[in-house]
Amino acid sequence: MTNNINRRRFLIASGGMSLAAAANLGKSMPSTNAQSASDVTRSLARYVVSAKFADLPQGVRKEARRTLLNWVGCTLGGARHETVEIALAALAPFSGPAQASVLGRRERLDILHAALMNGISSHVLDFDDTHSKNIIHPAGPVVSAILALAEHGPASGTDFVNAMVLGVEVECRIGNAVYPPHYDIGWHITGTAGVFGAAAAAGKLLGLSEQQMTWALGLAATQPVGLQEMFGTMTKSFHPGRAAQNGLTAALLASRNYTSSNRSLEADFGWARVLSTSRDYSRITDKLGGTYEIVVNTYKPFPCGIVIHPTIDGCIQLRNEHKLTADKIDRVELKVHPLVLQLTGKKTPQAGLESKFSVYHAASVALVQGSAGVKQFSDQAVRDPAVIALRDRVTAVVDPAIHEDQVRITVTTKDGRRLEKYIEHAVGSVERPMSDADLEAKFTGLADGVLPSSQARRVMDLCWNIESLPQASELARAARAE
Amino acid sequence: MTNNINRRRFLIASGGMSLAAAANLGKSMPSTNAQSASDVTRSLARYVVSAKFADLPQGVRKEARRTLLNWVGCTLGGARHETVEIALAALAPFSGPAQASVLGRRERLDILHAALMNGISSHVLDFDDTHSKNIIHPAGPVVSAILALAEHGPASGTDFVNAMVLGVEVECRIGNAVYPPHYDIGWHITGTAGVFGAAAAAGKLLGLSEQQMTWALGLAATQPVGLQEMFGTMTKSFHPGRAAQNGLTAALLASRNYTSSNRSLEADFGWARVLSTSRDYSRITDKLGGTYEIVVNTYKPFPCGIVIHPTIDGCIQLRNEHKLTADKIDRVELKVHPLVLQLTGKKTPQAGLESKFSVYHAASVALVQGSAGVKQFSDQAVRDPAVIALRDRVTAVVDPAIHEDQVRITVTTKDGRRLEKYIEHAVGSVERPMSDADLEAKFTGLADGVLPSSQARRVMDLCWNIESLPQASELARAARAE
Repeated sequence: MTNNINRRRFLIASGGMSLAAAANLGKSMPSTNAQSASDVTRSLARYVVSAKFADLPQGVRKEARRTLLNWVGCTLGGARHETVEIALAALAPFSGPAQASVLGRRERLDILHAALMNGISSHVLDFDDTHSKNIIHPAGPVVSAILALAEHGPASGTDFVNAMVLGVEVECRIGNAVYPPHYDIGWHITGTAGVFGAAAAAGKLLGLSEQQMTWALGLAATQPVGLQEMFGTMTKSFHPGRAAQNGLTAALLASRNYTSSNRSLEADFGWARVLSTSRDYSRITDKLGGTYEIVVNTYKPFPCGIVIHPTIDGCIQLRNEHKLTADKIDRVELKVHPLVLQLTGKKTPQAGLESKFSVYHAASVALVQGSAGVKQFSDQAVRDPAVIALRDRVTAVVDPAIHEDQVRITVTTKDGRRLEKYIEHAVGSVERPMSDADLEAKFTGLADGVLPSSQARRVMDLCWNIESLPQASELARAARAE
Repeated sequence: MTNNINRRRFLIASGGMSLAAAANLGKSMPSTNAQSASDVTRSLARYVVSAKFADLPQGVRKEARRTLLNWVGCTLGGARHETVEIALAALAPFSGPAQASVLGRRERLDILHAALMNGISSHVLDFDDTHSKNIIHPAGPVVSAILALAEHGPASGTDFVNAMVLGVEVECRIGNAVYPPHYDIGWHITGTAGVFGAAAAAGKLLGLSEQQMTWALGLAATQPVGLQEMFGTMTKSFHPGRAAQNGLTAALLASRNYTSSNRSLEADFGWARVLSTSRDYSRITDKLGGTYEIVVNTYKPFPCGIVIHPTIDGCIQLRNEHKLTADKIDRVELKVHPLVLQLTGKKTPQAGLESKFSVYHAASVALVQGSAGVKQFSDQAVRDPAVIALRDRVTAVVDPAIHEDQVRITVTTKDGRRLEKYIEHAVGSVERPMSDADLEAKFTGLADGVLPSSQARRVMDLCWNIESLPQASELARAARAE
């Protein structure tokens, strides 16, 4: 042990700080809620165990249906992606019995692998839902876990919706408690907070006791998934998939009384202190059952990092209003929120997945092609000479006055005009939401080529009518490829 | 998105710090190696891919055999523990084909589940190996992964030893780069660094290319497992098991070209910056192939947190030297290293697993019973009135002059004597290592009641002779229960 001694000595000797202080070096002091932080995990578990479908307001139930429909559409759209093909080729040889469906495909896997694959598929296009307070993609971890579980045991449509709403509630409340510092450190919050949502939702369907639910949250806490460094690679979509699988594993273990901490969120060496520089526990425990996070969920009109959306929105508007073509444009200047360059600052993306994190590519393709769908973020689009040529004439600077769903665009034409566009709220934001018809059109586009159109229509209807299904598994079975 | 705006505004406005700076709030500045930190992950991958068994020094090969024998013994010893029973009951229904053995049991599972179960089993008694520089338990993540993998595809004994040594090298070098700050934050380093060792070792057996190995390390980086808050519960032993399973998953995905970051360790939002307050990349990349971490691996004589070992060692010596019995003892005072109270300060443990983290219980049981084996850390021992009575008369104070493998014990007898014992290096440390005979005796005790003694003898012989096996899987098969 000799090698450690000098370093430890130094640590202990320098400044005479206590070990507890040393252990929390670089952490901010406990929030003002520290005195009430003795029962955070258990309070959350107690709420999830006791919450009933009958108590859900109509608006919550409606948004759950919209979230579900959007998730199923995205999962179908990603089902044939190379990322999913590879994951299946690598892991299917180790799958258990054919218990659950991989949406949009013929394979059936054990529920843990199905949760992983559907989670990957749902996120690989970067087209899934985004929570407006914490940029978690809420459905991926939660629905991937419980749709697989619903195929293995009985779960009515109302039980399913209740579990889904609660899972989203848990992951988003935990996310709210640590966002943005937890995200700014470099964690991919969809995986790190999402695992709690998956555990809570799966635990609810499994009928866990309060103690078991507390343990399930502990088993989730100890399995966070996701570094932002993975953005632009296949590993990004692994995050919600693995969060679903880990959360489901946590609930299954807890259901057999596999023990864990009772204070996994709030303990000194628990999740919120270890994974974030600050935290506000009141955002987890206040008004449980009185407010619902799912009502401020949002749905993307474009399959790419959400902070690019204002830019795409503005570029398409400019193109349409001024009948712009690429050959008329000299340069494009963007004033953007800081997160745009942090998350989507890739100048010369080489692959479709990488282009989803390039505001330069997005601006260019929106101006060149007038749209920004799945094809505009494909390997082919990235290699399009016209897109590349304009992309190299796009610049972006950070402006602290610009909010996350805003942008200020200036296009200078070759004939010397300066065309400006300010987007105050991007299409798809809480303020300018996708309508039900928009969501159906998006779904139809995503399912095209994966399921026959009549089958896609039936799957949409099942999503809208999920509450009336005797068994929620009917939805999963209906979304399989034949 | 409105809810974030004010907070973000504040962050950006206050002090005018850059977003990059804000993102690293609470992180120390890059180490002096930052300028050379552009190729850390790839350098490590390149080394693992190119390293050959023939280059391993004899001393390294010998320590690998000792590490293997100790790991197999611990895994057999844990095989019937309630923790393993529960994990199997919860997850076996989702296992794939019977590809790999659960040591000391009849069940056979797919390789991913077998890696998980053997990893849990190997750690549940807290009796497994401990690296002297970073307190990683090196074998758990690595051997659990590759022994399962070796049952699925061809792997000679020499290939197995080479992969094992490289896995230990990778996890311990990464551990060294961030220890102790990473540990002091609250991460259970065996799971967080161990996942890299499992990925590297499994990737080596799978014959990954340099690019694939780099991706495997990326997939490992994004799946860290383990908060220290879980100590004393079943979730602690889940950590090395899940690290083994996650690392194996990472290698399998990478073998099919599932892409990930090329800079997962050293990137701004990579593992070493996100999970530690400081880091020294030179400890990952310096002298690769010139030094071997496995040669300073250590093996426990007592099945409990290693920082308690000096106390047990000293108490047993005092008992023997002075023919002490519990009724003669008035009180016991310990001067200990700070980690002892941080990790093992549980005053009134209620279960066997919890007692492994109670220096009070350990001192008491060692004085009362004169030994500290598996039975002394059982549920029964925790409830023993004689142990409880003396435990309540044990006090411990931190002394910065005491090293991690030291203790100063004062026993005051009822007749007024003060008996003192200073332990400079605990038994089992690098300075006072377990001999081969000690390891065999430990193995025999652990296998007792799990395998017939002739079978246990054969398994030990296979560990010592691992290099000569045409297929390493022979070891796994030999360690199954009939």
